[in-house]
Amino acid sequence: MLEDKTPQKTDIASLGEFGLIEHLTEHFKINHTSTVKAVGDDCAVLDANGLKTLITTDLLVEGVHFNLSYMPLKHLGYKAVMVNLSDVYAMNADASQITVSIALSNRFPLEAVEELYSGILLACEKYNIDLIGGDTTSSTTGLLISVTAIGHSDAKKITYRNTAKENDLLVVSGDLGAAYLGFQVLEREKQVFEVDPNNQPDLDAYTYLIERQLKPEARKDIVRILSDLDVVPTSMIDISDGLSSEIIHLCKQSKVGCNLYEEKIPLDPQVISVCEEFDLNSTTVALSGGEDYELLFTITQSDFDKIKGNPHLTVIGHMTDANSGMNLITRGANQSVPLTAQGWNALLDKDKEE
Amino acid sequence: MLEDKTPQKTDIASLGEFGLIEHLTEHFKINHTSTVKAVGDDCAVLDANGLKTLITTDLLVEGVHFNLSYMPLKHLGYKAVMVNLSDVYAMNADASQITVSIALSNRFPLEAVEELYSGILLACEKYNIDLIGGDTTSSTTGLLISVTAIGHSDAKKITYRNTAKENDLLVVSGDLGAAYLGFQVLEREKQVFEVDPNNQPDLDAYTYLIERQLKPEARKDIVRILSDLDVVPTSMIDISDGLSSEIIHLCKQSKVGCNLYEEKIPLDPQVISVCEEFDLNSTTVALSGGEDYELLFTITQSDFDKIKGNPHLTVIGHMTDANSGMNLITRGANQSVPLTAQGWNALLDKDKEE
Repeated sequence: MLEDKTPQKTDIASLGEFGLIEHLTEHFKINHTSTVKAVGDDCAVLDANGLKTLITTDLLVEGVHFNLSYMPLKHLGYKAVMVNLSDVYAMNADASQITVSIALSNRFPLEAVEELYSGILLACEKYNIDLIGGDTTSSTTGLLISVTAIGHSDAKKITYRNTAKENDLLVVSGDLGAAYLGFQVLEREKQVFEVDPNNQPDLDAYTYLIERQLKPEARKDIVRILSDLDVVPTSMIDISDGLSSEIIHLCKQSKVGCNLYEEKIPLDPQVISVCEEFDLNSTTVALSGGEDYELLFTITQSDFDKIKGNPHLTVIGHMTDANSGMNLITRGANQSVPLTAQGWNALLDKDKEE
Repeated sequence: MLEDKTPQKTDIASLGEFGLIEHLTEHFKINHTSTVKAVGDDCAVLDANGLKTLITTDLLVEGVHFNLSYMPLKHLGYKAVMVNLSDVYAMNADASQITVSIALSNRFPLEAVEELYSGILLACEKYNIDLIGGDTTSSTTGLLISVTAIGHSDAKKITYRNTAKENDLLVVSGDLGAAYLGFQVLEREKQVFEVDPNNQPDLDAYTYLIERQLKPEARKDIVRILSDLDVVPTSMIDISDGLSSEIIHLCKQSKVGCNLYEEKIPLDPQVISVCEEFDLNSTTVALSGGEDYELLFTITQSDFDKIKGNPHLTVIGHMTDANSGMNLITRGANQSVPLTAQGWNALLDKDKEE
């Protein structure tokens, strides 16, 4: 177990709750003038300064959202923050603060919690986030992490899911499917390790995929790029469950349809080659894989020239009237296939069935 | 088990995550104009309107913070909200929004989650709180609830823990010790029930104590009373761990000492009689019992006339210089005994040892 590899153990109970929080948070700096009061009182106090305040929260459960046998605790801490920041960026807003609550069983020594917080700290430093509070408690089994992120934005820039319009262009950042394949690679290596613990895996061909799974990055840069390009999306969502599921959310909430072009879906070369190795369809992986934490948004056609040629952004389709439905236009044959909401779990089940 | 008593069961998985959230939140109304966007997007959006925004979060874990064999799920939902609102009121602020995340194992049917949310809804309606978001996920064992509360206040009214001054008066709302005794009564009845399930307990003599344990009320009214009396406390904290522990927090963070007068500690008559029945010292119960969710605060001596005679408020001591230490002045003998931080768990352990 990764959390047990440090030889020196400290009993968390010996610190007490306040001692533990003080210990875990001592390296966090407050960077925002809006953070009037952070850890150390009943509440954190923020000065919104006339701007809109945004709040989002996610709960990650061991055995459900992560497996500590191949997810190092530092990566887990980092990812728990990313998942939440991604939700703030998906509103076209800036994230500025987080609270972190953890529940952990007594099998975790202090060093394990430090490792977890080192990942949270790294995320906070890299993304300029203030940790402003939280709660630390014991659990009867396993580890739980609850993160709440707070962001701010000008009212006129905030972008919702239900405001896409017919004829808008559908745009995605980065590339898709890699995080899911990274998970598949790690699962396979775990099984190989269980059979032969002396086997040294050569993971060079999978570095991008594994990094996308273990250390996803929320697309703060896209919010800045859109601002620099003077583009306010007409709707936006982040891709946590898979492209297909997120497109359906945008369409249903906005009451529009969509044509998604299979040949336009951005895929990394490693995704294409590893899909061949695993005998998986790369389009299925991109549509249903999830955990990519890319941003999916719509823009008016008049904004196309502003984003054209940007290496981070790909136009993958356009919105239609609701009656036309949500369709994938296949490569080559140009057939129209209705999109279905298959999340990550659906894909897993399907793999098992095959 | 209380969560299994409803004959009709619905599988949560059949609803899907979004269906479940939609189902659970359909009865919640949005009351604040500051709530621009609640459940249904990546983030909730609040307009702070130039006021300070306050955030607090608490994580409640089955088997650690609550026992479902005598805590009905509706009460649990209510209490989970109270615990957080109490933290906001302890800043002398108004609470206006919450997010609620839950993780639950497959032993909970939909009806159980509905019961939990009915308590959350009741709390939201009674305290005028908007539910603005959250996360619902599965757990491998047991139930977890993570609540984040958001409040607002004028900057000049926000009251911290570290600003008590020498000679300030120490004031507490309501009365103390009842929640702990309620827990003792419930524990005893549970043991009686295990021996003789046909025994019908007569709990009439304990109604106040049980209500204080199962359905605590956060003191929103005290914030309003203080405002009406034109009193801004010099420091404030809520009593979750016991009077002694909270006084020590105020003193240490404010760098002052304190004299607490045993004879001034407000006790309900039921607390006094049940302490006799259980052979417990009522002062020990008030000092270390915890879970009272009353407010403990300091005021300048010049504000004494404003609060004098208010039935909700009791002056229990005064702050001294730090070198004098934190002391309990005993009843009758007028002896000075140093206060020690004994939480609820410490008291339980002590009971076991005796």
